Amino acid sequence: MAPGPKKGILERLDAGEIVIGDGGFVFALEKRGYVKAGPWTPEAAAEHPESVRQLHREFLRAGSNVMQTFTFYASDDKLENRGNVVGFTGQQVNEAACDLAREVANEGDALVAGGVSQTPSYLSCKSENDVKAIFKKQIDVFIQKNVDFLIAEYFEHVEEAEWAVQVLKSSGKPVAASLCIGPQGDLNGVSPGDCAVKLVKAGAQIVGINCHFDPVTCVKTVKLMKEGVERAGLKAHYMVQPLAYHTPDCSCQGFIDLPEFPFGLEPRILTRWDMHKYAREAYNVGIRYIGGCCGFEPYHIRAVSEELAPERGFLPPASEKHGLWGGALEMHTKPWVRARARREYWEQLKPASGRPTCASMSTADCWGVTKGHSDLMQHKEATSQDEMTELFHKAQAKN
Amino acid sequence: MAPGPKKGILERLDAGEIVIGDGGFVFALEKRGYVKAGPWTPEAAAEHPESVRQLHREFLRAGSNVMQTFTFYASDDKLENRGNVVGFTGQQVNEAACDLAREVANEGDALVAGGVSQTPSYLSCKSENDVKAIFKKQIDVFIQKNVDFLIAEYFEHVEEAEWAVQVLKSSGKPVAASLCIGPQGDLNGVSPGDCAVKLVKAGAQIVGINCHFDPVTCVKTVKLMKEGVERAGLKAHYMVQPLAYHTPDCSCQGFIDLPEFPFGLEPRILTRWDMHKYAREAYNVGIRYIGGCCGFEPYHIRAVSEELAPERGFLPPASEKHGLWGGALEMHTKPWVRARARREYWEQLKPASGRPTCASMSTADCWGVTKGHSDLMQHKEATSQDEMTELFHKAQAKN
Amino acid sequence: MAPGPKKGILERLDAGEIVIGDGGFVFALEKRGYVKAGPWTPEAAAEHPESVRQLHREFLRAGSNVMQTFTFYASDDKLENRGNVVGFTGQQVNEAACDLAREVANEGDALVAGGVSQTPSYLSCKSENDVKAIFKKQIDVFIQKNVDFLIAEYFEHVEEAEWAVQVLKSSGKPVAASLCIGPQGDLNGVSPGDCAVKLVKAGAQIVGINCHFDPVTCVKTVKLMKEGVERAGLKAHYMVQPLAYHTPDCSCQGFIDLPEFPFGLEPRILTRWDMHKYAREAYNVGIRYIGGCCGFEPYHIRAVSEELAPERGFLPPASEKHGLWGGALEMHTKPWVRARARREYWEQLKPASGRPTCASMSTADCWGVTKGHSDLMQHKEATSQDEMTELFHKAQAKN
Amino acid sequence: MAPGPKKGILERLDAGEIVIGDGGFVFALEKRGYVKAGPWTPEAAAEHPESVRQLHREFLRAGSNVMQTFTFYASDDKLENRGNVVGFTGQQVNEAACDLAREVANEGDALVAGGVSQTPSYLSCKSENDVKAIFKKQIDVFIQKNVDFLIAEYFEHVEEAEWAVQVLKSSGKPVAASLCIGPQGDLNGVSPGDCAVKLVKAGAQIVGINCHFDPVTCVKTVKLMKEGVERAGLKAHYMVQPLAYHTPDCSCQGFIDLPEFPFGLEPRILTRWDMHKYAREAYNVGIRYIGGCCGFEPYHIRAVSEELAPERGFLPPASEKHGLWGGALEMHTKPWVRARARREYWEQLKPASGRPTCASMSTADCWGVTKGHSDLMQHKEATSQDEMTELFHKAQAKN
Repeated sequence: MAPGPKKGILERLDAGEIVIGDGGFVFALEKRGYVKAGPWTPEAAAEHPESVRQLHREFLRAGSNVMQTFTFYASDDKLENRGNVVGFTGQQVNEAACDLAREVANEGDALVAGGVSQTPSYLSCKSENDVKAIFKKQIDVFIQKNVDFLIAEYFEHVEEAEWAVQVLKSSGKPVAASLCIGPQGDLNGVSPGDCAVKLVKAGAQIVGINCHFDPVTCVKTVKLMKEGVERAGLKAHYMVQPLAYHTPDCSCQGFIDLPEFPFGLEPRILTRWDMHKYAREAYNVGIRYIGGCCGFEPYHIRAVSEELAPERGFLPPASEKHGLWGGALEMHTKPWVRARARREYWEQLKPASGRPTCASMSTADCWGVTKGHSDLMQHKEATSQDEMTELFHKAQAKN
Repeated sequence: MAPGPKKGILERLDAGEIVIGDGGFVFALEKRGYVKAGPWTPEAAAEHPESVRQLHREFLRAGSNVMQTFTFYASDDKLENRGNVVGFTGQQVNEAACDLAREVANEGDALVAGGVSQTPSYLSCKSENDVKAIFKKQIDVFIQKNVDFLIAEYFEHVEEAEWAVQVLKSSGKPVAASLCIGPQGDLNGVSPGDCAVKLVKAGAQIVGINCHFDPVTCVKTVKLMKEGVERAGLKAHYMVQPLAYHTPDCSCQGFIDLPEFPFGLEPRILTRWDMHKYAREAYNVGIRYIGGCCGFEPYHIRAVSEELAPERGFLPPASEKHGLWGGALEMHTKPWVRARARREYWEQLKPASGRPTCASMSTADCWGVTKGHSDLMQHKEATSQDEMTELFHKAQAKN
Repeated sequence: MAPGPKKGILERLDAGEIVIGDGGFVFALEKRGYVKAGPWTPEAAAEHPESVRQLHREFLRAGSNVMQTFTFYASDDKLENRGNVVGFTGQQVNEAACDLAREVANEGDALVAGGVSQTPSYLSCKSENDVKAIFKKQIDVFIQKNVDFLIAEYFEHVEEAEWAVQVLKSSGKPVAASLCIGPQGDLNGVSPGDCAVKLVKAGAQIVGINCHFDPVTCVKTVKLMKEGVERAGLKAHYMVQPLAYHTPDCSCQGFIDLPEFPFGLEPRILTRWDMHKYAREAYNVGIRYIGGCCGFEPYHIRAVSEELAPERGFLPPASEKHGLWGGALEMHTKPWVRARARREYWEQLKPASGRPTCASMSTADCWGVTKGHSDLMQHKEATSQDEMTELFHKAQAKN
Repeated sequence: MAPGPKKGILERLDAGEIVIGDGGFVFALEKRGYVKAGPWTPEAAAEHPESVRQLHREFLRAGSNVMQTFTFYASDDKLENRGNVVGFTGQQVNEAACDLAREVANEGDALVAGGVSQTPSYLSCKSENDVKAIFKKQIDVFIQKNVDFLIAEYFEHVEEAEWAVQVLKSSGKPVAASLCIGPQGDLNGVSPGDCAVKLVKAGAQIVGINCHFDPVTCVKTVKLMKEGVERAGLKAHYMVQPLAYHTPDCSCQGFIDLPEFPFGLEPRILTRWDMHKYAREAYNVGIRYIGGCCGFEPYHIRAVSEELAPERGFLPPASEKHGLWGGALEMHTKPWVRARARREYWEQLKPASGRPTCASMSTADCWGVTKGHSDLMQHKEATSQDEMTELFHKAQAKN
């Protein structure tokens, strides 16, 4: 598809191109049976490579320009904390993830991005050197496997993200940094604008938001980051990879605060039409790296690609199986379904939940605990029954 | 895994075993980018076999005992009507589907079921012989590929289903028959009880319901079928493969009548906990072949398998990546999420939609047109712009 | 306003005129501070006559042609059971209520209807003679005060209603009979059609439904009554006086089964536009005595009068303070509110609840206990703490 | 009831007493058929005095300590603008309103408050002198009728409220000032804290919020006012008289922006239990003058009185017809309703709307026009058809 070497991430963004990201692997593979919710670790890269390869391929077909290595929470400290029962080392998981991403990236016009994320070491108040050493081990694999660029993503504390960026930067590869925070700022109250400035100063060329909040909220937060960067007289590219869940009712820690997290989020899943709106809003705000996180399935990314097809000049491969704006319904058996083959029909639809005894909003938990709080000290063992009982009572007392 | 020849479908059911079905391939693969909504045809079996193989494998891991060939709407008349642009013949698609199902079935304790479904020929008032000839062509492939049993599924008119059963029966293999109707009966008003009697008399050993309605409604309808069969002094096994969407507000033609069909159904998706309730209710009613249809993802089938693990005596392979009743959340980073690692938490949760400007129920279309109505005559061409405009006005006039 | 003697109720109905009823006094006066929820007795007629007079006057202004005496639950057995602490005898309450109704009726074109309702004696399995004696005492007052006609209303058992009709009939005045049942029939399972036939045979010239269900359900039930009467070759006039609360989710005993009864029903209150629809549907079904019950405020009755103004040929007095279909909003300060002065705006509005953490439907209690059940034996004392605890546990066990 | 002269408003507040306000007369009397929505003028004081007297009496029974004269929008410029068709002069209306308030106040422990509100003259950019002259005419009546204190209420612009306070202050009577703004401040963007400081400096001894927003929002806004006053080193008493409608979704101009205003607000009405929460929160914030505005019916005020009975030491008269926390349900016929006679039952109830095809939140209009905008220039004539069409298109363009 792409003869000659591919353009790098910065070349694309500098040229004003739109870069489509991929979706959230841990949630998608949890539903397919390969990832365990709770630990959320990516051992499937080594244990069930066919499942990871297939998901990469689906996102590629949907229009993704980035194959992010399936290395979320693949740091050694996390794998160990979360009970690394499958017998693969962190290095094995990271290597396998790089190979899979590269294999599929080569099937189309996609780059490979090596990703690191926040660590239990930081939450447990380990030293800057200790935390950086954790990142360094993953980067070593990424460099050896020659990924195209690096992403530090899913950080709740900008300080830890800065440390990660500093380590990633040492590789000489382009660096993106993405926090999982909302408009109120990071868990220490640093505003989105200030966070962005810190990340750019630490060396990130691309900054933005991923996970924890819905598209509306994430785009709004990136806008605040952009305003901060511009106010500081700096320059950056912007990325956004939100949830595919509506979260109008969540508070400081995003969807983790919602009572539905993580096993009752279905009614909140965005439709493909919600994704059209999201892609357009992100574009209008000036974001050019537009992807997704937890909850995104391939058809969500395809919808992003289809919305931005006029700007990009082409549709993704998977659109051969999709009539734009429901157009393929012209072939449906029932005439009244054929009558839905129109953009305005889907743009105006307000989908019902089919759950008349459920409400539309939840009351969020909001513990507000953060780094340093004893409840967050990570330990290897699963929570004991006594600890569970105590937590349960604390949770009740909050409500 | 299974040394020696596997037990057949009737052997299992006669012995009182629970047989877990799989989920709906067209909807799952539409979201993955391999099936086109509207035509809903299964050319991916030949065109992108790796995607179909992977989905089979995920359902096998989730506990499915049946790999249904991905041959929905794979009759020649349908493929032609829906614009068979990809260049595979019906025979090629059916053969490829059989091979994929067999390959994965052999990886575990699953049987292969060849499936046929309602035809445009019937809707267009072709003769009994013409319609039966259509079924015969698919059966020929199934016999040649030596599937383990046959399913006639997704019929809105019991008459066409009887014809299908008669053709399938000629193969000598066990036959299951499954209608897509609700408690009000088929589109000609034949009651579920009478439908079931007709199907049993036509030769089906297993009868039931699939698609079009939510689990609550489908289980209720199978119960009516069972009561009809017993009243008639007959015997049968029962199956149910409902939608994974809540549809309290749909009318005669099920979810197709809902304004959200097919691209705005997300808020209606069942959670895994809804699936536990469904599996238990189906079991309590006396249904022993319990699976899913449109909307079911592998984790939904896993939930069915987990609910019925006490009766079956074992968990499915994919449960290694799932703590029962959310138990794996004991390993979650945040303490308040760890407090959700309890059955009662998830059983009592009423998930919010996150859509405060959307209602919980829709007003269903209900055209009530059926076989013989001119609007249902199938033609090869996509609906023209003029026809679309006319349909649109008809649809508006209904509301 | 009406020189010469007024036309009687049967003269009006025989002539095809529409008769507008009034609204439910116990609920309206509970909100104004004069009736106690629980006992629901009408001692205010004697204790605070100005409040009852004012409410009569408001309904008269709203278009009511019937001033129903405020004698609900004013039988001696009920007053005694419910703790007649205010020191008025049943006779005093009934007499005061007649005087107030007559005073206001004379201010316009309204008739006075004396009303009786179901008795604790019947629920406690007293004899037919005992129950009839209870009714007789109220009728004696009504005859002495020369009301224009009589209504037996709010009966859950058609048998008791027949007894009441027989007693009322002995007065020689026209008799209306109104049950508080839904489409499923009375609490002994007698269908609406059969109930209506029994009431007509007992001597009622007007039959229908009041209370317990919303307008949609009540109109549907009266339609079933009408079909029953016509099937039996009989003749009658029809009346309907539903709740002003939406009750799509209630079961056998109507809104009393809803968890919101009686102190959390606010979100269910019908708008004036809902009342337009109700009035039109009732009229279309052939009902000519159209009023309201619990929840109806004067503006609800005015909306009924306004909807039927084309048929009646005039508007009610209170319409001088109401622009039809919101027309008076043309005088609102804000321009965007002036833009709402249109019929189509209000007809299409789907009003939001403003309660995003509440659902749209409840799960109804459904005890299904009826006459003869020990829990329904009426006693003079308030429920004891021990009995309350027992009830509470029974209620929980039902859910 | 109260021998000797009553304590004045400031005496009470200075002594730390709670003063219970009344509810909103225009909305309550609109539903009873005496006020026209749109103009919202109080000619009923002269035209139908019995209706106004009765409503005063109900609030007195419910616990109100203030009988506010029914003089909302009773300035001459407003009466004229809104089509003063009934033939009473502004002076006649104001005098009648004073007499009615005084008559009922004398029946209990209540004070009479003369009220003025914002004027069309201000919105139409008349001079400070012209606007003050309008207020002066009403004050003259209040002084002549010797009301106990004065309230300037329902102002969207603090500037106009200051002018009003200055005029009221000249009377020598205690002055309260109440804006109809939310946490975002007045329509010119002056913050609640700054507004409060301006009002206190203009001479108001009591400052606060009424109308436009729900109790949660109003209490929050008064809290901001209090913080502003305290920051400025000033002193004041605080009042709050919110809507009885839930308005989580309204924007700058409060419930007027909601599509349901004013004829579809029913689903938003607060229950009596919501009022308990409101009263407690208002008290906890330090507000001591606690009443209501549009939507408040007498039972809402009674709930406020009952919640604060422990602090006040007594229940209001109307509580004789109300079991605290539903206690009177112990006398209900049905056992499962008797089981609801408990505080925890009502505190935990989340009332359903009974409207499954309606959403829980609306999308607010938000025109944001304010004083000086040509659309707000008040004229005597009703909006013409052409103007209406133009408004309609503007309104659509906003959405």
